[in-house]
Amino acid sequence: MRAIVIDKDGVAVRTDYPEPRPANGESIVKVALAGICGTDLELARGYMNYRGVPGHEFVGRVVESAESSLIGRRVVGEINAACGRCRACARDLGRHCPNRTVLGILGRDGAMAEHFVLPNRNLFVVPDSVSDEAAVFVEPIAAAYEIFEQHPIPRDSRILVIGDGRLGALVASVFRSEDYDVRIAGHHREKLSRLAELGFATSHERELDDLYDVVVDCTASSAGFQRAVELVRPRGLLILKSTAADGANLNLAPLVINEITVLGSRCGRFAPALAALDARKIDPTPLISATYPLEDAARAFEAAAAPSNFKVLIRPT
Amino acid sequence: MRAIVIDKDGVAVRTDYPEPRPANGESIVKVALAGICGTDLELARGYMNYRGVPGHEFVGRVVESAESSLIGRRVVGEINAACGRCRACARDLGRHCPNRTVLGILGRDGAMAEHFVLPNRNLFVVPDSVSDEAAVFVEPIAAAYEIFEQHPIPRDSRILVIGDGRLGALVASVFRSEDYDVRIAGHHREKLSRLAELGFATSHERELDDLYDVVVDCTASSAGFQRAVELVRPRGLLILKSTAADGANLNLAPLVINEITVLGSRCGRFAPALAALDARKIDPTPLISATYPLEDAARAFEAAAAPSNFKVLIRPT
Repeated sequence: MRAIVIDKDGVAVRTDYPEPRPANGESIVKVALAGICGTDLELARGYMNYRGVPGHEFVGRVVESAESSLIGRRVVGEINAACGRCRACARDLGRHCPNRTVLGILGRDGAMAEHFVLPNRNLFVVPDSVSDEAAVFVEPIAAAYEIFEQHPIPRDSRILVIGDGRLGALVASVFRSEDYDVRIAGHHREKLSRLAELGFATSHERELDDLYDVVVDCTASSAGFQRAVELVRPRGLLILKSTAADGANLNLAPLVINEITVLGSRCGRFAPALAALDARKIDPTPLISATYPLEDAARAFEAAAAPSNFKVLIRPT
Repeated sequence: MRAIVIDKDGVAVRTDYPEPRPANGESIVKVALAGICGTDLELARGYMNYRGVPGHEFVGRVVESAESSLIGRRVVGEINAACGRCRACARDLGRHCPNRTVLGILGRDGAMAEHFVLPNRNLFVVPDSVSDEAAVFVEPIAAAYEIFEQHPIPRDSRILVIGDGRLGALVASVFRSEDYDVRIAGHHREKLSRLAELGFATSHERELDDLYDVVVDCTASSAGFQRAVELVRPRGLLILKSTAADGANLNLAPLVINEITVLGSRCGRFAPALAALDARKIDPTPLISATYPLEDAARAFEAAAAPSNFKVLIRPT
């Protein structure tokens, strides 16, 4: 089949990639759309030494399954495939199973291909009201909802999302959908203008001079993390949704002096995200900057890395 | 008067230091004992460019005050002198007042002298049941109790304190006094032996192979922080009680991947610490390694930096 593959030289298109073979309890999904996220760009640059098909944001249709109720259904899927037998799994935290594989990230081929496999229990049927273009955002929206599952955030908190990219925009969308006072800060004038058009309060991050109850770091940079530390009030909450790929000397002293709580936050449950899309509390589709056929992987990854773009999609078929 | 002074050349003893002059609402305290903590060692090495008398752990007697009920009383004192007028002060968080001075750390001469001044509202009378040698530990014990004020910690949590020095020992003492299952890890065999004699469960930090619900970093080093990150379970709590003076490339990715909460924690209220000492729930006095007269400041600071010692005290008079 055709697939985008990451090897030691980066991203390549293969036309002879082996068709996936489902293990017990797994279904084969035919991909309609796949999204490119910051992690995919990092993997392409060598992060985690990933080798195989990337892609963990998708919407597709089940074409083969031992679970007959899934066959032919339009689905999205949680990306962590857990062992089901360890202490984390017993606590319903399969997302932290130490034996897990992760779709397109760790030990499991991902969705930037014609087909891939996931365990049936990871798949969620998409309501008819939710378009493919919206459903492909379920994974990152679920990751944003994860924040509320981890930590109570008073409704009157002032929220600052730092990072004006696709992740920051989705996190801000989720806070907005839950009626929080949220502002997006960044340093890309073009993106900030576009986000303002979408109704967000925005600021250049150097022009902020107030402190916030909650700051969400979506910058994926050490400089962004340090700026986030500066912008959270004493005893406030700093949420890490991205991690810095660049190594840098980080000064953690302000965390102690100002008694800041830092909350690392990764993947989330899909149910709240699907419900929010079904109820039209969130519309992520204005964040789609471009859609490329699978064969144009190089151009698609380049576009996803361009500072002027938000979400770039791949259409395999 | 005689005082220990930090200037650009480090620690010196002065015999002609000006007597402190109390502002409105301040008392003069005659120092009985002062403790040397890791922060003092850092200040002596140039941290925060501090110039003046160090010392924020003390017990002494009020010799001059407009508040007659304080005169002659034995006291300890909270180290943050707040403005009383800002937003933080209005929320009863004077410890985070942006206009604060901090005893022996920021804009205010400290307790390693014959006399010093603090606002009356910062002073706490020491119960007769608590000796000078125990009372001098109130400040760091209060800082350990601060953890419980910031974050709920289930009583069945498995606690690891990493760092086998005076701070780690006091933090572990406080967890033990609250009936938690606590272990101290470090890499100083002599200190670990001494802590085992004091009844603590101890481990060499390289010999740990389990994960903990709560890890408290008392190492004041980047390597210690990274080891703490390795030892906390997914969704667990990492408490920062010390900060690294050494700069190093810190990798925060595991915080996101494992969804760890990091809690920066600094000073605490004195009441719980005094109550614990009064009730004999904690006895910190076995941690006293040596007591020096003020004139021996250089030797005292050297002893406080030696890896074989826990707490070193200064007796000014």
